[in-house]
Amino acid sequence: MTVRAIAAEAGVSIATVSRVMTGRANVAPDTQALVRRAVERLGAPAPARRGAAGGAILVRCPYVLTDYFGVIVSSIAETLDLHGRRVVLSAGDAARGTRVLPGLPGDPGIAGAILIVPPEPERELEALREQDFPFVVVDPRTPLPRDIASVSAANLAAARSVSAHLVDFGHRRIGVIGGPGDWLASKSRLAGHTSALADAGVLPSPELLRSIEPTADWGYGAACELLDLPERPTALVAFNDKAAVGALRAAYERGLRVPEDLSITGFDDIDLSRSTVPRLTTVRQPLEEMGRMAVSLLMRLLDRHTVDTLHVELATHLVIRGSTGPAPAP
Amino acid sequence: MTVRAIAAEAGVSIATVSRVMTGRANVAPDTQALVRRAVERLGAPAPARRGAAGGAILVRCPYVLTDYFGVIVSSIAETLDLHGRRVVLSAGDAARGTRVLPGLPGDPGIAGAILIVPPEPERELEALREQDFPFVVVDPRTPLPRDIASVSAANLAAARSVSAHLVDFGHRRIGVIGGPGDWLASKSRLAGHTSALADAGVLPSPELLRSIEPTADWGYGAACELLDLPERPTALVAFNDKAAVGALRAAYERGLRVPEDLSITGFDDIDLSRSTVPRLTTVRQPLEEMGRMAVSLLMRLLDRHTVDTLHVELATHLVIRGSTGPAPAP
Repeated sequence: MTVRAIAAEAGVSIATVSRVMTGRANVAPDTQALVRRAVERLGAPAPARRGAAGGAILVRCPYVLTDYFGVIVSSIAETLDLHGRRVVLSAGDAARGTRVLPGLPGDPGIAGAILIVPPEPERELEALREQDFPFVVVDPRTPLPRDIASVSAANLAAARSVSAHLVDFGHRRIGVIGGPGDWLASKSRLAGHTSALADAGVLPSPELLRSIEPTADWGYGAACELLDLPERPTALVAFNDKAAVGALRAAYERGLRVPEDLSITGFDDIDLSRSTVPRLTTVRQPLEEMGRMAVSLLMRLLDRHTVDTLHVELATHLVIRGSTGPAPAP
Repeated sequence: MTVRAIAAEAGVSIATVSRVMTGRANVAPDTQALVRRAVERLGAPAPARRGAAGGAILVRCPYVLTDYFGVIVSSIAETLDLHGRRVVLSAGDAARGTRVLPGLPGDPGIAGAILIVPPEPERELEALREQDFPFVVVDPRTPLPRDIASVSAANLAAARSVSAHLVDFGHRRIGVIGGPGDWLASKSRLAGHTSALADAGVLPSPELLRSIEPTADWGYGAACELLDLPERPTALVAFNDKAAVGALRAAYERGLRVPEDLSITGFDDIDLSRSTVPRLTTVRQPLEEMGRMAVSLLMRLLDRHTVDTLHVELATHLVIRGSTGPAPAP
């Protein structure tokens, strides 16, 4: 039963049917009755809004809420509040060990979920989808089937723009301080980096890749390894600003000037990237917008609206500052 | 009716009464009945555990969940999960504008609350207390009455230890990059700083104090102002690591070497403070422990246990690294 069929049966516009079903906008009681009777005649109960009484939304982010994850969760919480939805939070590293998803469809208190980089195997997400439980994935860990809604940054294009910027500066030997190797975001960024290098006729070298946790300590360690290679890279691409701060320190300890001897780039554009010495060339990630978009998609799923574009990628923005410059002469 | 009275009436130990009331530990059914009958004889219903069916806990942190607030909230979420309690989250800057507290005592879904730096006026907190609603304040904004449970870091002692370290190094003219002026934590830290200076016979100078938001950008701006004073301070104390990173940049731009020409200290000991150049002398804050302690106090309030120490201050730890050194010769 489509909205179009109901509208035709009731003799009202599609927009009116939509308004009645979502219960959001004012529709005259007579018109509401018209639509409901049309739905009944068409042989199915009117789609009930799940948790019409304001059922809560589970926000699951099984990581410490840092300047990255915490910003996304804050934005989600603020936006759900605007929709009058209560937020039930599952967060912190320890939350990775709890099995939450299978119980969601049967939980009368939970109307939907937003899952941030879910560590669960894909089949658990598919099981939720099969049970018609409304949920949206932010930054999926693996590529998801077409019918599971997701929001992420345009990671491939973003990393490609950073590495192309370095290639334009003549860099060919570029070390990569990547994120966890099994994250889709890490793989997409690596693919973007590889494509920019390939445009300059260079194939990536495995010895130049490190996969780390997104912290300054890990970034420092990875940068030390890369800078101590027999043939030193002329640039380091970090997939995280904090890791880039660690890389800046590793360069300093080796007497390497940034950007004269070594270019360094970050990712995220957190507050700090403007206060490092030199300031970081990085990629601005739309973290707040990712949160808002996730809520928007979820609300449409809750309202049983048709959602055509289930996979949303948000554009990023290359921010060029002082940490990148021409490759040093050989 | 005290636990002691019930124990006497039932002829069991106080510990047994406590176990029966909290429902946590195994107690033989006969013993449980013994205690319940004693309670009935004493003329009052057994204290019901609020939300015995696992009522949710509101965690209200009306700020963006950064490396500071996000770490506390993550720890609270993990710990409440261990207690089988669901977390309802109110977070993000926009949450400061929503009035949440007055509705809590009448909300059947909420068993208790943890309020992080609550912006609400003290009378709203007192009203909650008068209605016997269980809640704990983390890092109160203003000094709270004795009977409102709170957890904070030992801010005064922490700041005193940092400034005493600088005074030992011969610094007397010390700029302070403080937190928001109306926060108790900021005031306590300032008091600690003042007391360390006073020990050296120096009174604080208002021109050396800036009150800012805890970001690198704000720290940079405040440091620029302080370093451009006609008589430049020989040290800057920042009440936040990110602000200290901004101060490091301000020093760099002025050609000041840290620590030879200028000492700089932070506060919090976030990951980043180990990767700055030089590494930051700072104060390690027990953020995770603050979260765990808040949950522990709340659980005792929920169980109607007597809580003697309602104001808990957790000790901090001075971490001396490379950003502090002897005051330069005049």
